[in-house]
Amino acid sequence: MNIGILGLGTVGGGVVNVLNNNKKTIERRTGSEINIAHAAVKNINDETICSTKNILLTEDAFEVVNNPNIDVILELIGGIDLPKKLIEAAIRNGKHVITANKALIANHGNELLDLAKENNTNLLFEASVAGGVPILKSIEQGLGANKIELVAGIINGTGNFILTEMRDKGRSFHDVLKEAQDLGYAESDPTYDVEGIDAAHKLAILSSMAFGCKLEFDNVSTIGISEIEGEDVSYAGDLGYYIKHLGIAKKINDEIEMRVHPTLIPKTTLLANVDGVMNAVLVNGNAVGTTLYYGAGAGSDATASAVIADLLDIMNGTVNNDILGWKELKEFTNKNNNSIESIFYLRFVTSNESDVLDGISSTLKNHNISIESVIQKKIDGMNTHVAVITSKSRTSDITEAVNNIKEHDFVKGVVKIIHVETLN
Amino acid sequence: MNIGILGLGTVGGGVVNVLNNNKKTIERRTGSEINIAHAAVKNINDETICSTKNILLTEDAFEVVNNPNIDVILELIGGIDLPKKLIEAAIRNGKHVITANKALIANHGNELLDLAKENNTNLLFEASVAGGVPILKSIEQGLGANKIELVAGIINGTGNFILTEMRDKGRSFHDVLKEAQDLGYAESDPTYDVEGIDAAHKLAILSSMAFGCKLEFDNVSTIGISEIEGEDVSYAGDLGYYIKHLGIAKKINDEIEMRVHPTLIPKTTLLANVDGVMNAVLVNGNAVGTTLYYGAGAGSDATASAVIADLLDIMNGTVNNDILGWKELKEFTNKNNNSIESIFYLRFVTSNESDVLDGISSTLKNHNISIESVIQKKIDGMNTHVAVITSKSRTSDITEAVNNIKEHDFVKGVVKIIHVETLN
Repeated sequence: MNIGILGLGTVGGGVVNVLNNNKKTIERRTGSEINIAHAAVKNINDETICSTKNILLTEDAFEVVNNPNIDVILELIGGIDLPKKLIEAAIRNGKHVITANKALIANHGNELLDLAKENNTNLLFEASVAGGVPILKSIEQGLGANKIELVAGIINGTGNFILTEMRDKGRSFHDVLKEAQDLGYAESDPTYDVEGIDAAHKLAILSSMAFGCKLEFDNVSTIGISEIEGEDVSYAGDLGYYIKHLGIAKKINDEIEMRVHPTLIPKTTLLANVDGVMNAVLVNGNAVGTTLYYGAGAGSDATASAVIADLLDIMNGTVNNDILGWKELKEFTNKNNNSIESIFYLRFVTSNESDVLDGISSTLKNHNISIESVIQKKIDGMNTHVAVITSKSRTSDITEAVNNIKEHDFVKGVVKIIHVETLN
Repeated sequence: MNIGILGLGTVGGGVVNVLNNNKKTIERRTGSEINIAHAAVKNINDETICSTKNILLTEDAFEVVNNPNIDVILELIGGIDLPKKLIEAAIRNGKHVITANKALIANHGNELLDLAKENNTNLLFEASVAGGVPILKSIEQGLGANKIELVAGIINGTGNFILTEMRDKGRSFHDVLKEAQDLGYAESDPTYDVEGIDAAHKLAILSSMAFGCKLEFDNVSTIGISEIEGEDVSYAGDLGYYIKHLGIAKKINDEIEMRVHPTLIPKTTLLANVDGVMNAVLVNGNAVGTTLYYGAGAGSDATASAVIADLLDIMNGTVNNDILGWKELKEFTNKNNNSIESIFYLRFVTSNESDVLDGISSTLKNHNISIESVIQKKIDGMNTHVAVITSKSRTSDITEAVNNIKEHDFVKGVVKIIHVETLN
């Protein structure tokens, strides 16, 4: 099996290293040799993290996808436009393609999978979600007997690192973000990580696998973690919750909801205890019940582990055809965000008057929302914080109620609305 | 695809129910229909938990395995001798076989897999370990790029339920065991669960999958939980640990150690927080790092989920050939238990003399064992408890040291030796 690698950076270099280090183990599993024949790099004079011995190097990635001796292309460049053109060319040349590129799959997966189907090749992307954790294969094969009802994951390591540090050390969002950038966890432009776009890409992929529907990245409702303040982390803790940045996809009847947002989850759940840069995905199936998959969501060798798992499936002929073009896609309606039912955490900054809680609770009651628990705390001579856990309510009711509460004179600016999930 | 089911009890009945309830979802994944054609039951007049409409029922299981129209046999009877004969007959008849029978695979898997290989059929057993959790497929396929270094799992739900209740409610082992029997979690003869034999069956299977070696159930060193006392649970807690009943398989160079025993693990690890009847398996690969897989280890529909996952692999042609006969089995030496290195928890009941701790620590020191942390607690006018966490030491050194300590006059009977694992 001759493979061509586009990109010998963190992931591509990791793939070469793991293939070299674990050569015997991998060949035992495939019964045949893997030959890294051709690789494209940005600058042929740059150092790589892997050996390039016996690999033909080029700066023109199209040379690799057009090389007639190559059977499988590993696209590990990143970005969208160039890798899309390269993958299309590779597929048209009859080659199997493996990619770790979640942005590309989330945005153009439908057309690329159709193209692969037409050309009778495989397009695989296990490494695009949760790094080394074999979550897509687990959903497709291990849980294939189930109607999946819920997928909920910590699928962005940078965001989870920031929230973990904020909780454990009482640090501010901006302080931890800067450290994450210095450590190389976060990009210099951290938008994709902290505004939830990276998690939304991954959720779109998880959701299409779990429910057997087309990729619909544009329908993921996305809120990042940049608005989370130390006070919220602290009040959540007092109320029995940790704040995690979750991607959640739920199927209720024939409606699907997909949302990425900060979420209060009970401290006692396993997902609440997934800390630092680690990833975990909870999958709830109607036969198996709740399952959870945990591991490194990024990193050179961990991501390489998932890329090579796809390669082994191609070599062993164990690619589930269902991934290739979904035999019979289901039609689902995307649930209108306003109609989503959820428990909510609300926080208000109010004046110190004595009837504040009364005003809040009576307004909530007018919208059929009750208060399950509450923390009221005088901050100084001027300000009180009121943090509330609501009953399960329609999002539109919560929005209206909060707007009405804002009209009270006692409300002084900051109002937070954060989802609460019990994950039952 | 015509299937025959041996046994329509908890698991067999669950398979029929899940196949009926999720018919459309499953057919979307396979592209073809599944027909439950023939089933064997103990007594044809007994009620079953599933519909038997359109299923030909018999009390002679050999009728099913000899039915020429059947493509796949699901062996869901339990026991060893009868199912072994039935599976051998089915394989010789050219049928694929799926079983949930861990005792049978652990004891006779090598010869049955050889027979399947000779007859060019598949013998699959995902449901034999950790119920609905797709752990075998994850090791074989999702982590196929890795040299696996460690597998550590909570793989007996009954044992985990007992230990969780003892910890959370301060109940005694015998009290909880009786409740587990009343609830139907534990058999009336609980030996397999509480003495670790069931976990040892599963560990032997996990280990052969992880390391690519033959099944060696006889080489699993096994200690149950029946000797765990409330005091140990409590001191472990004070020292920062929970006691879990783990199956652990480690590969160090070309040696393998397989052991099932109560284990102190740090409270902060995910595995320590897997409670009640739930199962979880931690897998450490040299590329992916630490991963964890969690879910229901038993139950009708959850176990059925794993049985049907194997059926889907057969129907989709996605059976990893590596499972069928292991292309090239590695030779490993089984590590002598005495040479295993581990941290240990030791508990002594001593008299109330003042030099007790001195006597213990100096004897340990003579065997190059140091004390990492200690709890000394006067129980009454006569007795003191001393609980110690040791440095990492050879098992033989610990055994000798403890034997020497026992010779001191201050030691009064009970001495506990329990493994500690940091799972790093």
